[in-house]
Amino acid sequence: MVPRVDLNADLGESFGVYRLGLDAEVLRHVTSANIACGFHAGDPMVMARTVAMAAENGVGIGAHPGHPDLQGFGRRSMELTPEEVKNLVIYQVGALTAFARAAGRPLQHVKAHGALYNMAARDLRLARAIAEGVKAAAPDSILLALAGSAMVRAAEEVGLKVAQEVFADRAYNADGTLVPRSRPDAMIHDPEIAIPRAVRMVTEGKVTAITGEEVPIRADSICVHGDNPEAIAFVARIRRALEEAGVEVVPLAQVVGG
Amino acid sequence: MVPRVDLNADLGESFGVYRLGLDAEVLRHVTSANIACGFHAGDPMVMARTVAMAAENGVGIGAHPGHPDLQGFGRRSMELTPEEVKNLVIYQVGALTAFARAAGRPLQHVKAHGALYNMAARDLRLARAIAEGVKAAAPDSILLALAGSAMVRAAEEVGLKVAQEVFADRAYNADGTLVPRSRPDAMIHDPEIAIPRAVRMVTEGKVTAITGEEVPIRADSICVHGDNPEAIAFVARIRRALEEAGVEVVPLAQVVGG
Amino acid sequence: MVPRVDLNADLGESFGVYRLGLDAEVLRHVTSANIACGFHAGDPMVMARTVAMAAENGVGIGAHPGHPDLQGFGRRSMELTPEEVKNLVIYQVGALTAFARAAGRPLQHVKAHGALYNMAARDLRLARAIAEGVKAAAPDSILLALAGSAMVRAAEEVGLKVAQEVFADRAYNADGTLVPRSRPDAMIHDPEIAIPRAVRMVTEGKVTAITGEEVPIRADSICVHGDNPEAIAFVARIRRALEEAGVEVVPLAQVVGG
Amino acid sequence: MVPRVDLNADLGESFGVYRLGLDAEVLRHVTSANIACGFHAGDPMVMARTVAMAAENGVGIGAHPGHPDLQGFGRRSMELTPEEVKNLVIYQVGALTAFARAAGRPLQHVKAHGALYNMAARDLRLARAIAEGVKAAAPDSILLALAGSAMVRAAEEVGLKVAQEVFADRAYNADGTLVPRSRPDAMIHDPEIAIPRAVRMVTEGKVTAITGEEVPIRADSICVHGDNPEAIAFVARIRRALEEAGVEVVPLAQVVGG
Repeated sequence: MVPRVDLNADLGESFGVYRLGLDAEVLRHVTSANIACGFHAGDPMVMARTVAMAAENGVGIGAHPGHPDLQGFGRRSMELTPEEVKNLVIYQVGALTAFARAAGRPLQHVKAHGALYNMAARDLRLARAIAEGVKAAAPDSILLALAGSAMVRAAEEVGLKVAQEVFADRAYNADGTLVPRSRPDAMIHDPEIAIPRAVRMVTEGKVTAITGEEVPIRADSICVHGDNPEAIAFVARIRRALEEAGVEVVPLAQVVGG
Repeated sequence: MVPRVDLNADLGESFGVYRLGLDAEVLRHVTSANIACGFHAGDPMVMARTVAMAAENGVGIGAHPGHPDLQGFGRRSMELTPEEVKNLVIYQVGALTAFARAAGRPLQHVKAHGALYNMAARDLRLARAIAEGVKAAAPDSILLALAGSAMVRAAEEVGLKVAQEVFADRAYNADGTLVPRSRPDAMIHDPEIAIPRAVRMVTEGKVTAITGEEVPIRADSICVHGDNPEAIAFVARIRRALEEAGVEVVPLAQVVGG
Repeated sequence: MVPRVDLNADLGESFGVYRLGLDAEVLRHVTSANIACGFHAGDPMVMARTVAMAAENGVGIGAHPGHPDLQGFGRRSMELTPEEVKNLVIYQVGALTAFARAAGRPLQHVKAHGALYNMAARDLRLARAIAEGVKAAAPDSILLALAGSAMVRAAEEVGLKVAQEVFADRAYNADGTLVPRSRPDAMIHDPEIAIPRAVRMVTEGKVTAITGEEVPIRADSICVHGDNPEAIAFVARIRRALEEAGVEVVPLAQVVGG
Repeated sequence: MVPRVDLNADLGESFGVYRLGLDAEVLRHVTSANIACGFHAGDPMVMARTVAMAAENGVGIGAHPGHPDLQGFGRRSMELTPEEVKNLVIYQVGALTAFARAAGRPLQHVKAHGALYNMAARDLRLARAIAEGVKAAAPDSILLALAGSAMVRAAEEVGLKVAQEVFADRAYNADGTLVPRSRPDAMIHDPEIAIPRAVRMVTEGKVTAITGEEVPIRADSICVHGDNPEAIAFVARIRRALEEAGVEVVPLAQVVGG
């Protein structure tokens, strides 16, 4: 059977007059878009434009809910109750779903953003709150979760489709968790190392930990970036490398969908 | 055939620690709720609570989108392009729809709030933008519009179900428009006048203008308020008067729904 | 020498159409007002009104900066860097100072709000950031700090006047810290206990810990509340009890100033 | 006597992760900075950075208050009462003044932004509200106003120092007002025309109207932009041309200051 993987990127992070990200460029290479929903980034005009561009490119449309913290871009931890998390997910998923509907597309997936993603990867109560929010607002969509994290378990508990995501440019611990960015060796900057590593996660289901162990990992989707021309070039290269290795690069719904 | 009318009120206007409106009380008397969507009032927690309460009371759930202006409660005019209006309607309708879905209910209707409502009642371009936003985000829902206004026409042009709303406590001009609130005689404060007047709008389809003429008017829904105990008492009285006059007071979808 | 103490309360917590707190009532009894600055509560109209009312009542005007989190009323922890804290203090103190200046009054003091207060009471880095912000924006004002906390030390390090505040309705640990609100015995609800306890903190400089020890405490100011009629009655009683015990109840600047 | 003029530009328009404007570049050429105050653009971190940079460059520090409308960048008209305008000016001027104080600098001037500027240029009631807000919050500062506009008159009425600003790249009507941007001939794109025109406004106090008349104009300050490299090059050229024509280019306080 031909291995498949999705390439996802964060999009629609502009706000008002402020422009962020090379959305038009990265949409030519990725297969799924995590679109900001107006809390940590994005606004109704940006969401409409981004959803339309994603639809035109045949890219899977996803909601990317985050903290109500535009000033901190959703990267600052906030002390939210599970009920607050569930409701801010319902709200943002609903808003993005309406733009998808306006563009004649289904909502393919939901991926939490920034601090919300990081907190929920470790904290099963918050992970469940996210999963319950998605289940309530968009029960047919897929939760895109950090591979091996509490979010995967929460999605399964709640009865939601789940996809596991990996990072080409991040080091992994022996237990499959990410090496925290506060450590100097957290990032893999050399594409010559990062790209074959990502391909191997897809084709072999394995990654070499920072401490040398071979770690099993499931890679339904690879997270990439579209912030600058170098990032775009990297996305193009990783896609080519995957295809040359016989991997089909397709939207998330075709990787995990029923 | 038995005449029917809906009673609608604005609900879910609390925000964070701030409480506004006697929602639990007014929900016992009205048949449709216009629920704030987080721009001029409301937040995800308030929306979840309000939708749940409306569902428990068998009250039709409506989205009540407004200007992005919490400080002004959506009552201040803002210079928005039709595209901005359309997208802020899609966004807010989508968010509220998700809470309705979480509660196992359909979105029954959409009613614009405050300055957005007033501007769109007169300005066909803005009215069309609202109607297009509703059509895109919730094509099966009803647009609740000021009787005889540009919003009624816009809904018809766009192919959206429309319901016409009247005010028991407002004076009307001979052309069927509302006497502006800036005039001292705009409001009808005496329930002994307001209530039979509202009943007559439903049963006879007529209202007496401030200049004495008999004006034809269509009353699918009557707008009432739940701000204080007197307002609640008024709602209870108007409902009783309608029922005593043989009018069925039912959710909007049973008045205009096809 | 006659003992002196200040009574402080949080004021100006309304926002737009939302009303919170019985400001006019509580201003008749307190001697210093901590006025919200538009981040966790308050807006320019509310600030203008509140400063004017405080000035009319001869009440000391203080800035009450908080987290940029209206929805959470500044009560939710947020992960802010010391530089972010310093700058949000400068911003909010500056805004409130301008309203004081417009009313012909100096800024008497600054007190951090909610989660910012709680975090800075324990975390010297955040406490220093607050003290540096106040020193930069209003070097002649007083930092009103939890008695015995890191904020007291930070104010001294930075060369800022500091006043120590106590709570009549909170239990204390043997080390002088507050019993956390998460514990069922954190609050002292009975005024017959709370009031003489507060008087003793001022006249004897001592409080009985929850574990029975006598703890030395400095009470330059007592924090009271104006949320509801019971709270107002409590403030009136505590003031009377203080005065009957021979304590002068005066604005903060007369307790610690110059 | 040697003619003098100030060059002013809008700065500090970044927000959170969003970057806008080449502030470091434009600061090398201008003599006064209008710094956004957190309503239409800017945040406490951006304000601190921008004030520090302006201070290092010896550039006059000004507050640039705008509408509470980050999404619309303060460019959308809003229906605000004069009292709302006055208070939002006090608030924003106060916040910026605190950052100036933290940097050891006085607040030199205030200039309204965007829709607030445009509305107040024509509407004497709003102009007075701005002038009163500045007088209340920063009575020693200068109001930087559109030459010949209602804002000039309001500042004089209120007893505030006022400076008149001209635009090098805008066409003027015979009555000294600006040709609205909605007209195709509103902008002067050719620097070969714009630059000598600006020099002449300063040295001769005259500008040629779009209809050919010679119009008297007072040019205390010329508004320039720092959005992109072309704009920066234009600022450098206009400054050189002014200096070659014998004009001293100095901060606003040295042009109009007592």
